[in-house]
Amino acid sequence: MDPQEILSLCKRRGFLWPAYDIYGGVAGLYDYGPLGAALKNNIEDHWRQLFVLEEGFLEIACPVVAPEPVFKASGHLDAFSDIYVECTKCGETYRADHLAAGLHENPATLKEAELGKLLRDNGVVCEACKGELTAPRRFNLMFKTSIGAGKAKTGYLRPETAQGMFVNFSQLYRHGREKLPVGVVQLGKAFRNEISPRQGLLRLREFHLMEAELFVHPEQKTWPRFKDVKHQKVPLVPNAAEPVTISLGDAVSKKIIANETLAYFMWTTWKYAVDIGMDPKRMRFRQHLKDEMAHYASDCWDLESELSIGWTELVGVADRGSYDLQSHIDHSQADLTAFERFDEPKEVEQEVLRPKFDALGKLFKGDTKKIADELAKQSPSSARGKKEISVTVDGKQVKVPSSCYEIIVKKEKVSGRKLVPHVIEPSYGVDRMLYAVLEHSYDKKDDYVVLRLKGMVAPIKAGVFPLMARDGLDDIASEICSALAKAGLAAYYDDGGSIGRRYARMDEVGTPCCVTVDYDTKADGTVTVRDRDTTQQIRVKKENAAKAVALMVNNGGLESLKGL
Amino acid sequence: MDPQEILSLCKRRGFLWPAYDIYGGVAGLYDYGPLGAALKNNIEDHWRQLFVLEEGFLEIACPVVAPEPVFKASGHLDAFSDIYVECTKCGETYRADHLAAGLHENPATLKEAELGKLLRDNGVVCEACKGELTAPRRFNLMFKTSIGAGKAKTGYLRPETAQGMFVNFSQLYRHGREKLPVGVVQLGKAFRNEISPRQGLLRLREFHLMEAELFVHPEQKTWPRFKDVKHQKVPLVPNAAEPVTISLGDAVSKKIIANETLAYFMWTTWKYAVDIGMDPKRMRFRQHLKDEMAHYASDCWDLESELSIGWTELVGVADRGSYDLQSHIDHSQADLTAFERFDEPKEVEQEVLRPKFDALGKLFKGDTKKIADELAKQSPSSARGKKEISVTVDGKQVKVPSSCYEIIVKKEKVSGRKLVPHVIEPSYGVDRMLYAVLEHSYDKKDDYVVLRLKGMVAPIKAGVFPLMARDGLDDIASEICSALAKAGLAAYYDDGGSIGRRYARMDEVGTPCCVTVDYDTKADGTVTVRDRDTTQQIRVKKENAAKAVALMVNNGGLESLKGL
Repeated sequence: MDPQEILSLCKRRGFLWPAYDIYGGVAGLYDYGPLGAALKNNIEDHWRQLFVLEEGFLEIACPVVAPEPVFKASGHLDAFSDIYVECTKCGETYRADHLAAGLHENPATLKEAELGKLLRDNGVVCEACKGELTAPRRFNLMFKTSIGAGKAKTGYLRPETAQGMFVNFSQLYRHGREKLPVGVVQLGKAFRNEISPRQGLLRLREFHLMEAELFVHPEQKTWPRFKDVKHQKVPLVPNAAEPVTISLGDAVSKKIIANETLAYFMWTTWKYAVDIGMDPKRMRFRQHLKDEMAHYASDCWDLESELSIGWTELVGVADRGSYDLQSHIDHSQADLTAFERFDEPKEVEQEVLRPKFDALGKLFKGDTKKIADELAKQSPSSARGKKEISVTVDGKQVKVPSSCYEIIVKKEKVSGRKLVPHVIEPSYGVDRMLYAVLEHSYDKKDDYVVLRLKGMVAPIKAGVFPLMARDGLDDIASEICSALAKAGLAAYYDDGGSIGRRYARMDEVGTPCCVTVDYDTKADGTVTVRDRDTTQQIRVKKENAAKAVALMVNNGGLESLKGL
Repeated sequence: MDPQEILSLCKRRGFLWPAYDIYGGVAGLYDYGPLGAALKNNIEDHWRQLFVLEEGFLEIACPVVAPEPVFKASGHLDAFSDIYVECTKCGETYRADHLAAGLHENPATLKEAELGKLLRDNGVVCEACKGELTAPRRFNLMFKTSIGAGKAKTGYLRPETAQGMFVNFSQLYRHGREKLPVGVVQLGKAFRNEISPRQGLLRLREFHLMEAELFVHPEQKTWPRFKDVKHQKVPLVPNAAEPVTISLGDAVSKKIIANETLAYFMWTTWKYAVDIGMDPKRMRFRQHLKDEMAHYASDCWDLESELSIGWTELVGVADRGSYDLQSHIDHSQADLTAFERFDEPKEVEQEVLRPKFDALGKLFKGDTKKIADELAKQSPSSARGKKEISVTVDGKQVKVPSSCYEIIVKKEKVSGRKLVPHVIEPSYGVDRMLYAVLEHSYDKKDDYVVLRLKGMVAPIKAGVFPLMARDGLDDIASEICSALAKAGLAAYYDDGGSIGRRYARMDEVGTPCCVTVDYDTKADGTVTVRDRDTTQQIRVKKENAAKAVALMVNNGGLESLKGL
């Protein structure tokens, strides 16, 4: 199938189109038109229904602009980059590893100098004008900006929504009443200042994510509801074995998938993708290769979908360990831990910092008590071997020399311990899923296109047609449209052209059913409801039109309308 | 009422809090926590229901990053700025006009030099450290970034969502099948790099808008459904008369409000605000003062709400004339017009550019035909008196001297005319509306806080409590939670503390009702439903719990549950 066909349909019928077209456009930026925005809203709403309402995750919404320290801690400032070359003649930019495709077995692993040599040795020039290329340079893929006037703060547009959830862990843990697991989600825009985006919706500079972060006890990765799904079979492509279609229960017990929680959310992901209309025969989970996985991740699976350009990653489901929280703890000194209460208090030997009040008193006079309190909270390991440590008193940093405290071992009854939770992260690319849904729904016979969208995601739930735009048929059709709208069902009124042409217009954009008002409606008060997929029709009372459309949207089929 | 009380509730209970707190925060950036994000979603969803489903506006979703030419045309690049001063000692920045408050009757109208003199003459120094201030400088309030590597394009984060709709007018006009009026909406983030934001949710650097652009025929600003609302009375503060509470019909006929369309959408705005829970006694429409209104606007009204800090603008409803489209036409040369078909063709005299083929042929040889075709499309008025005009042929600009064409008058039968639509724009600040809803819902007796949120916007629709977390009561409560979730109703399970305390926790966050499972539930299968506002209770069958909660959410009250 030709992806151009879909993109042309998308543009013509108002799903999406390149943004800022009247000013020449910007590669990697797309607008969602009226049908695309509705489709996207529906895709996101169903995800909310699943994760927030049914699984109980907490939804938050953070700004997309974030200050630099967040991305220093997350690693994006140092490592979120690609290498590019620029044409010295026409200024066109290229990803160096893309130009080196075919010249090396894995050009993405090469450094700037190696790539430069490879391109030079192979005489690679500008694809557009054959001009000479610059030496490869590294480019950070975050959009940079400054916050405020004067001595501005450096800020970046977030490359993912996840960091907003990590930095807020304490708030969220408290909100969840200090219990693990606590699940959090965020839906929203993310940004990646691609060097040279050329793949339509699959590689955008501004895109939409739906991300879930499940904070769990590091040693408790079983999942109570796993028993309900462990018989479900999914096709897996493990990184160290042959592809296999296997039940999730077996995959966990054979250690193909690292733990139950990961497997449970792989199933949630699978189910969600099928719900919104992807074809399960064109889906699989591929495990990240060992060298592809982040060093801290203990396991990671991508939901891939077979598209016209090949197997494409849509969702990543990863066990990220404690990496993210630990890194923010290290960089911010904030306490992003959970507290595990023991069944009964334990006696433990513990090192603590003991303030020496004499020495403190001489140096700090009236602040002695406050400083001593702060000292007692410091971790002995961070003080060991240092000449002084810093504490914050009344908002000010105070340096306390080591003569003012000692490290002692204390026996204590403790009721529990602090721990840094692990994170299981399902991360969904909305634009890619939307595109996959379009490809998997696209059905063409001769020149007749039917988009077989699931009713739940279809942008228009029903076309409403008066057979003729006169004799009051148009008024009845308008009333039905209003009734549908009141019931939250998007309707499209159309009185132009033959009924056949009107059906075709709705089929092409995936509308699951059409309601037609004809002269019988005036006689007996019934309207026809036509099913997009069977093209069969049934008559229902006009006052039941909204009920009928709601049933069709929930995949009831015409059967379910009998008696309405 | 003390706004700190609300902000403290918001933070404690997870509505919202300052963003990036663990890294010291960034002024003007807030996170929506689990309750705030849900409240915001509900506020937006109801707006969509009203504008998209019921009024038939088309929703689109554009990127927030946009290239510079968009904002050159919109005027933001030149005029979207404030004047600031910086402390030479501590680096703190201030809006110069804010520092000059009280020293001049309207400091916002002053230029840099005037403000500098005023501050100097009055010995104004840094509020934080008494340091000396720099001279005032102008600061553009758009966040700036660059798009792409190498020779990057300058981009900005959009300061409003409106431009995305203007630049897409042609696409949207076609999508609406080339008829006026066509209404478009966009919901999403917008950005304003404030110099020194200090007003919580009322002045954010990153905020949320819901904007509608209604493109209308310039001479047709009546509105068919105005007849349904013209008897509705609203309090108006006109810019040239005394405040008055008057019907919209009278306001239009007395020319207080410029036209029916504007008045109709003022009513839509009023109704929406009341729907989501604002207090109509603390609302009014204030007309922009003559010098406050944009020069191109023919009328503009703000919906204002009385908050603890005084009357505050939440929504602007403006007739912006043809300014926006005309400006993009001028800057992009794109054809952003609508076509008005005459009832029957008219004979008109029209000036046209006629190419002189002899002269053209000598200069342009083989390109003559192409250039002549382009010349014929040019507007005679733009060519008059010029020595040459530019046309674009095969993507290249060609300069054609005036000897190659003449301006003649031609009689023609024309079937219609092109016109630049006018724009009626209702623009809603989501964060401000959310804050106003919180203030207007806040009810405190002694120390007991009840947030009287409308069920429709409440983040949690029902608390679900087992009287005791044992004897199977907890299992029944969990089942009820699941049933509510499946029905799309956010439920909160709580088995901690006394029932009274659990009610209090739900009252404080605006949950309209609570469902309690007690020992009678095991005996007769009924549960209690408690109404937040009356604190009365009624028993319903446990399998009807979702139905009961849905009725309570739609403001049915306990009366409506009888018989369930």
